[in-house]
Amino acid sequence: MTSDILDEIKKEIMAKLPKTTQVSKVEFEGPEVVVYTKNPQVITENGDLIRSLAKELRKRIIIRSDKSALLEPEKTIEKIHEIVPEGAEITDIYFDTVTCEVVITAKKPGLVIGKYGATSRNIVKNTGWAPKILRTPPISSDVIGKIRTTLKNSSKDRKKLLQRLGRQIHQGSKYPNDWARVTSMGGFKEVGRSSMLLQTPNSRVLLDCGVNVAAPDNKTAFPYLNAPEFSIEELDAVIISHAHLDHCGFVPYLYHYGYEGPVYCTTPTRDLTTLLQLDHIDIAHREGNPLPFNVKHIHKAIKNTITLDYGEVTDISPDIRLTLHNAGHILGSAISHMHIGDGAHNLVYTGDFKYEPSRLLEPATIRFPRAETVIMESTYGGREDVQPSRNSAEKEMMKTIYRTLKRGGKVLVPVFAVGRAQELMVVLEEYMRHGMIEEVPIYIDGMIWEATAIHTARPEYLSRDLRDQIFHMGRNPFVSDMFEKVQNHNQRKDIVESPNPAIILSTSGMLTGGNSVEYFKWLCEDERNTLIFVGYQSEGSLGRRIQKGRKEVPLEDDDGRTKEFKVNMETKTIHGFSGHSNRRQLMEYVKRLNPRPEKVITCHGDPKKAVDLASSIHRSYKIETRTPVNLDCVRIH
Amino acid sequence: MTSDILDEIKKEIMAKLPKTTQVSKVEFEGPEVVVYTKNPQVITENGDLIRSLAKELRKRIIIRSDKSALLEPEKTIEKIHEIVPEGAEITDIYFDTVTCEVVITAKKPGLVIGKYGATSRNIVKNTGWAPKILRTPPISSDVIGKIRTTLKNSSKDRKKLLQRLGRQIHQGSKYPNDWARVTSMGGFKEVGRSSMLLQTPNSRVLLDCGVNVAAPDNKTAFPYLNAPEFSIEELDAVIISHAHLDHCGFVPYLYHYGYEGPVYCTTPTRDLTTLLQLDHIDIAHREGNPLPFNVKHIHKAIKNTITLDYGEVTDISPDIRLTLHNAGHILGSAISHMHIGDGAHNLVYTGDFKYEPSRLLEPATIRFPRAETVIMESTYGGREDVQPSRNSAEKEMMKTIYRTLKRGGKVLVPVFAVGRAQELMVVLEEYMRHGMIEEVPIYIDGMIWEATAIHTARPEYLSRDLRDQIFHMGRNPFVSDMFEKVQNHNQRKDIVESPNPAIILSTSGMLTGGNSVEYFKWLCEDERNTLIFVGYQSEGSLGRRIQKGRKEVPLEDDDGRTKEFKVNMETKTIHGFSGHSNRRQLMEYVKRLNPRPEKVITCHGDPKKAVDLASSIHRSYKIETRTPVNLDCVRIH
Ligand SMILES: [Zn+2]
Ligand SMILES: [Zn+2]
Ligand SMILES: [Zn+2]
Ligand SMILES: [Zn+2]
Ligand SMILES: [Zn+2]
Repeated sequence: MTSDILDEIKKEIMAKLPKTTQVSKVEFEGPEVVVYTKNPQVITENGDLIRSLAKELRKRIIIRSDKSALLEPEKTIEKIHEIVPEGAEITDIYFDTVTCEVVITAKKPGLVIGKYGATSRNIVKNTGWAPKILRTPPISSDVIGKIRTTLKNSSKDRKKLLQRLGRQIHQGSKYPNDWARVTSMGGFKEVGRSSMLLQTPNSRVLLDCGVNVAAPDNKTAFPYLNAPEFSIEELDAVIISHAHLDHCGFVPYLYHYGYEGPVYCTTPTRDLTTLLQLDHIDIAHREGNPLPFNVKHIHKAIKNTITLDYGEVTDISPDIRLTLHNAGHILGSAISHMHIGDGAHNLVYTGDFKYEPSRLLEPATIRFPRAETVIMESTYGGREDVQPSRNSAEKEMMKTIYRTLKRGGKVLVPVFAVGRAQELMVVLEEYMRHGMIEEVPIYIDGMIWEATAIHTARPEYLSRDLRDQIFHMGRNPFVSDMFEKVQNHNQRKDIVESPNPAIILSTSGMLTGGNSVEYFKWLCEDERNTLIFVGYQSEGSLGRRIQKGRKEVPLEDDDGRTKEFKVNMETKTIHGFSGHSNRRQLMEYVKRLNPRPEKVITCHGDPKKAVDLASSIHRSYKIETRTPVNLDCVRIH
Repeated sequence: MTSDILDEIKKEIMAKLPKTTQVSKVEFEGPEVVVYTKNPQVITENGDLIRSLAKELRKRIIIRSDKSALLEPEKTIEKIHEIVPEGAEITDIYFDTVTCEVVITAKKPGLVIGKYGATSRNIVKNTGWAPKILRTPPISSDVIGKIRTTLKNSSKDRKKLLQRLGRQIHQGSKYPNDWARVTSMGGFKEVGRSSMLLQTPNSRVLLDCGVNVAAPDNKTAFPYLNAPEFSIEELDAVIISHAHLDHCGFVPYLYHYGYEGPVYCTTPTRDLTTLLQLDHIDIAHREGNPLPFNVKHIHKAIKNTITLDYGEVTDISPDIRLTLHNAGHILGSAISHMHIGDGAHNLVYTGDFKYEPSRLLEPATIRFPRAETVIMESTYGGREDVQPSRNSAEKEMMKTIYRTLKRGGKVLVPVFAVGRAQELMVVLEEYMRHGMIEEVPIYIDGMIWEATAIHTARPEYLSRDLRDQIFHMGRNPFVSDMFEKVQNHNQRKDIVESPNPAIILSTSGMLTGGNSVEYFKWLCEDERNTLIFVGYQSEGSLGRRIQKGRKEVPLEDDDGRTKEFKVNMETKTIHGFSGHSNRRQLMEYVKRLNPRPEKVITCHGDPKKAVDLASSIHRSYKIETRTPVNLDCVRIH
C-alpha cells in the first residue's frame, strides 16, 4: 500500500512532464517529492510547469539531477568559482552524494544565489549539482560548526528518515477527522516544562517539550510523558516553538527512549536549542544531578530536525499541515499554525510571543488563514502586569550606565544568554555609536558570545531595521569592535582588576551560577560599580535577595571558604526589556487576531495569570476560554 | 514477582492461624484470599480470628475445606435435607468442585442460612462443603436460569480469571499516585452511550459502557473507544452503574475485541443487563442493523462479572477500592464510590439516580466516607425541570384509568421494560387491592414479565416497604393474580377482541417498535380506550407525534400495507414517574452530600441541562464545577 502511493505519484508526474525531462526516479524526502532527471536543463527551464504540477498534486516538488548527469566534483568546484563572483567569499564547498546537492558556504550567500536566483541556476545548468547555499557567520560559531558536521556525516541516515517520513505523511488519512484534542503535558497553570499533545484520529503531534530548570525535583521538572494517551512509538512529529529550555529542553529524552521521527522548527531555533541543550547537560553534570539523556541524543535530535522558514506550508502528517510564523520572542521563535483535516479545524499555538516591535525582532504575526482555537501564553496575563515601554526602559538603562561610567565604575548586567543579551547589545552599540554613553569596552562573556554568533548567521530572522543595517548599510551591530569576547578566568580577572570603567554582560541572569556570580563577588564591595537587573529574578535566587535590598550575602571566596560579601555597589532593576507580551499586548493580540478565534486556551503562566487573562478575554471579546491544568485534555473540534 | 505476593500472604496467614487449621493451600479469588483447610471445624469456630486477620492484611479472607475433607456428594445431599427445615423448599443442589462450594437454591433461602447463619454453619461442619445459597424466584426467570447455567458450566474458566485478577490487584502500585483523571468517552453533554475512563498512574477503569439506541448512526451510537488513552489490553476493570442500555449496552463489544478482565456490578444489574442486551441483539437483527458483537460476547460478559452488594468494599486494582451504593433509579442501580491510592483521592460517580423514595426503591445514598470529586447525571438539571410529585402523578393515573374502565374502555400504557413498569405494577396492585379502581385483568407483555421475574428474585434490593410486605407479611405484589402474562400474538388478539375492559403494560415505551405498537393499532380507533404516556417520548418517535396531538398516523396494517390509523382514543401524558431526580432533587442531593465535594462534574444531560445544573451548583454551594464534552479529559487529582 505505501509503495503504491509513490508509484501513483510517479505515474502522474511522468504523464505531465515533457518526455525530454528523462525522469530517472521519484522519491519522497520528508514532505517533499523529489524528481531526478537525466537532463538538468529542465530544472532551470520548466519552472512554471513544475509549479503548476505541485499545485495540482498539492505536494512540494523538487527537481534534481540524476547521478549520471553530474559533473565530477573537482570540475564542479572550478566551474563554481568561474560562475560565482569573487565578492561572495566562498569559504567551503562540499558534495552531498546522497541528495546530489553541492553545499556552498559563503560570507555573502546572496551573491551565490544571484539576482532572482540566476547565479544558482547557472550552477545547476553547468554542473548538474543542485546548490544548497549557507552563510558563513561573520562571528564564527562552534555550535553551527558542530551541527553542519553532524548533518554532513549523517546524510544517508537522514535520507532514510525522510523517505520513511514521506510515506507516512502521504499515505492519506485512515479515519475521518471528526475530532481533535489537546492534552496539557506540562506548562499549564505554571511556567516551565511547556508541552502539549495534539491528537486527531490520524495523528499525534507534540508541541514543545521543555524542562523546568528551577524545579526542585524531576517529577516537577519534566512534562507528564506518562499520560496514557502519549506513547513515543505512536508520535508522528514534534514541533518546537523556540529555543528556550522550558520549550525544547526535554526533546533529547524522546530520542533516548526510541523516538525516530522528526522535529520541526526554524533554523535559528535548531541552532540555539543545540547550544542551550549542550550547556544544560554541562550544568546538570556539574551540579551532580545528571539529566536522563546525553550528548548522543542531542545529536540524534539534530539529525532528525527539519527546519522550516516562516510562512512555509508543510504537511507533517496525513491530516496536519504546519506553518510557522514569527513570534517576536527570541531569534527564530515561532507561532505554529496547524491546519487539521481538510478544513476540519485550525489550531494556533503562540508559544512565547511579543506583540510589540523590539530592537531585535518584528512583532508577532496576527494574520492566519483560519484559527478556530488559539493556545496562548499568559506569563504577564495578570491585571497588574503593565510594564514600562521599551523606550523608557532604554532611557533608564542609559542614565544608569552613564552615571556609573562617569564615576569610574563598572556596570555588571547578569543576563540570559539568548535574546535579552542581544537586545541589549544592539541598544548599547546604538547609544555608544551616537556618543550618548562614554566609549568603554563592552565585555561579552562566553555563552552570550556564542548565542550572538548564531544571531549573525541568521540575519534573515532579525527585525527589518537590523536587516536593513546589515544588508544595505553593511553595518552589523553584533560585529562592532565595541564588543570583546571573554572566555576564561584570567581574562575576567584582568577586566575587574583594570582601573578602567567597563560594561559586562554575563550569564546567568539570576546570579544562580555561571560567571555573573564571579563578577559580582569581585565588583560588589566598590560603591562606584552598578548591578543592573533586566529580567525576572525567581524566588530564592541570589539575584532576588540582592534586588530586595540585602546588604550582605554569604558566598564562597576564591579559596572555597564562605565569606560575607558586602553589597556596596549600586543595584538597579529595569523593567520593560521582557521578550513576553505584557497584559495590554496580550489583550491587544487577541483583539486584533484576524479572523477572531472561537476558543482561547491559556498556558505558560501562574494559575492567577492564566485565569485572569482567560476571564478578561471571555468578558471583553465573548470568546469561549479554557484554563486547563497539566493532564487535562481539551477537545477542540 | 507475582507468585511471591501470594507466598508472602500465605506465610503470614500460616503464622497467625493455629496449627489445627491444617492449611492445605492459599489462593487468590479475585479480590479475595481463599484459605483451604483440612479441618473444616475451624471455619465455623474461628470467626473472630479470621476477621482480625483480614483486618490486619487489609484483604478479604474466605476459608473453605480442602477436597480431602469433603463428604461425598450423595451423602452431602442427604445431610443437607436433614439439616435444613422442609419449609425452605429447596429446588436445586449442585456441587462446584472447583471452588468446593455446594450451591443450594431454595424458595426461602433465609431458612437455609438460619438464624445468624447457624443452619449454614451446620452444613459446613457436617459436610465440609461451603454452602452458597440462591433464591428460587417466585416467578420463574429464563434469564436467571441462563445465567446460572453459564456460571455452572464455566466454573474452571472463572477460577482462572479470579486467580489472575487476584495477582493483578494485590501486586501493589508500581508508580506513586500523584494524579488521577477522567476522560469523557460518551454521554457527556448528551444522553446515551454513557462511558468514562478513570486513569491513575497504576490503573485504567471504565465506568459504564453504553449505547445510544436512538442514534442515527454507529458513530454517534457508541462511546469513543478510539480515544488515544483507551486500550482494551490495558483495561483493568469495568464498572456498570445499572442495567439500562445507555450504561451497559456496549460491554459485550469489549469482550469481542479481546477484553479478559472483570465487570463489577450488583447482581440485579447483571441479570437485567443480560436481559436487555439479549433483547437489543434481537431488535438490531430484526431491524437489519446488526450490532458489532453477538450472544457469545454476552455470555463472556456474564462469566467475567463479579457481583457486589451495596456497601461491600472491594479492591479492583492495585490503587482503586470500589464500593457500590444504592442509586434509587432502577433495581440494582448503583452509585460507585472509588477510593484512589492510599487516601489520595475519592471519586463518586452517581450514574442515573433518584433522590426521592419511590414505591420500588429507597432514595439514593448521600453518605460517603470521603468524596472530593462527584460526577453526576443532569438529565433534568434545567431550571424548568420541576415535576409533579410522585403522589399527584399516581392520583392522575388512577383518575384516568378509573374513567376509562368506567366507560368500558381499555388502557394501554407503553412503558420501558425495566423500572417504570414494575413501579406501575406496584401502584396498580395497591390501588386495585384497595378497591380504588375496578378489578380488571392487568396484562403484562413478555419482556416486562421477564424483568419483573428478576425483581422477584432479588427482593433484597427493593424498598424497605416492599421488603416488609414480601418477607414479613408474605405478600409479594408482583405475584398477585391481578397480573397476567402475555406471550404471543393470539393472546394479544384475544385481549383486544374481548369486550371487557383491561389494563395493558407493553414495550416499547415510545411506540417505536415492540408490541405496544400492535396494541395501539388495535385500540386507537375506539374512543372509549386510553393511551397513557408515563415516560419521555423522544423527537421523531411515534409516541411523540401522538403526544403532540396528531389525529391520523400512517402505519402498516396486518397485511403489510400502509394505512392511516385514526387516533380516536383518549391520550394522556403523566409526568412524575421518572426514575431520574428532578432539578430540585439534584440540587438537594449535592447540598446534602456529606462531606461536601470539592468538584462536581455533570454528565448525562443535554448541553443546556449540564451547564445549567453546574452553574447553579457553583453559585449556590461555591463548589468548582466542570461540564466536559465527550473526549475532554478532566484531571481530578
Ligand atoms: Zn521563551
Ligand atoms: Zn517559555
Ligand atoms: Zn462567563
Ligand atoms: Zn438509567
Ligand atoms: Zn441513563
